Amino acid sequence: MQLLQDRIRREGRVLPGEIIKVDGFLNHRVDTQLLGALADEFAKYFDTSKITLVLTAEASGIALATVCAQKYGVPLLFAKKAKSDNIEGGLYQSDVFSYTYKKKFTYIVSQEWLSADDHVLIIDDFMAKGNAMQGLVDLVNAAGATLEGIGVAVEKGFQGGGDLFRRLGVPYKALAVIDRVDGTDLFFRED
Amino acid sequence: MQLLQDRIRREGRVLPGEIIKVDGFLNHRVDTQLLGALADEFAKYFDTSKITLVLTAEASGIALATVCAQKYGVPLLFAKKAKSDNIEGGLYQSDVFSYTYKKKFTYIVSQEWLSADDHVLIIDDFMAKGNAMQGLVDLVNAAGATLEGIGVAVEKGFQGGGDLFRRLGVPYKALAVIDRVDGTDLFFRED
Repeated sequence: MQLLQDRIRREGRVLPGEIIKVDGFLNHRVDTQLLGALADEFAKYFDTSKITLVLTAEASGIALATVCAQKYGVPLLFAKKAKSDNIEGGLYQSDVFSYTYKKKFTYIVSQEWLSADDHVLIIDDFMAKGNAMQGLVDLVNAAGATLEGIGVAVEKGFQGGGDLFRRLGVPYKALAVIDRVDGTDLFFRED
Repeated sequence: MQLLQDRIRREGRVLPGEIIKVDGFLNHRVDTQLLGALADEFAKYFDTSKITLVLTAEASGIALATVCAQKYGVPLLFAKKAKSDNIEGGLYQSDVFSYTYKKKFTYIVSQEWLSADDHVLIIDDFMAKGNAMQGLVDLVNAAGATLEGIGVAVEKGFQGGGDLFRRLGVPYKALAVIDRVDGTDLFFRED
């Protein structure tokens, strides 16, 4: 998506360790008009008439997923990061190893709000190795729900996560795929 | 706001310790159409033409604040909960004691995205004792920005937070104020 690529090129920053910082418009300060455009773009790739729920993960996925859910006329469900292993009953949970924070955490969603009847579109702001996304897919599977698609705003294509999910057999779309970082230069995969 | 009161009465649950659970439509599974109605209602109480930014706190405030920011045509900024005392530079920070989790945490926002030129509307989903809200107000003050108003979806009126901010001299609006809990019955303050 040209609009998003241009924005990343103009305002994104590359930090040591190939960290790509887009916190001025996507995941700290958030350009809500841009999110509307991203939600419209996702709608070209997914049959939004089939979905009953948009699923994302706290915290940085929530803004984008909210705008998507609102546009598609369905509820949003966000997986919470459990603070400890002391987790109450009635929850689906999945373990995730975070490379960013170098530790394991657990996503939880209430069984009350995700069921085998649901048709789920997962939306997240960022994908690197795909561990967090796998955690969300695990929650959908644990509930016996149907995964209708996976949408990601920015994919770090060189970290392999996107390719895992392209092989999964469900519609997958990343709106901007960064294939390579060279110093402070970003190289995008063409659509 | 009658719509929100009715929804809380119908779907909210009171848990031991006067905990009011609204996780089916406000802060876990989120009814995005309802959020649109809440954002429209807030706009009756605040001069949204004056604001440059909606500020909230991760994670549960983000969905509502996103819809508000989008409707008012301004960016959203969400304060992050710092994981440790090891916080990098270039940040405004405020310490908050959470009664829910019985521990202290720190809100941070990048100084890049909040400045003395900003006119800020704070939006959050819930208020009890007001500690988290005070943390957000502290961030606005640290930046020298102008606080234009505080909007809360659900206020637990009997825990005192709302009254602190009603005395602050800025427009304050809670869309549903629960004044008393008796067993599983909720008593709302009338507008």
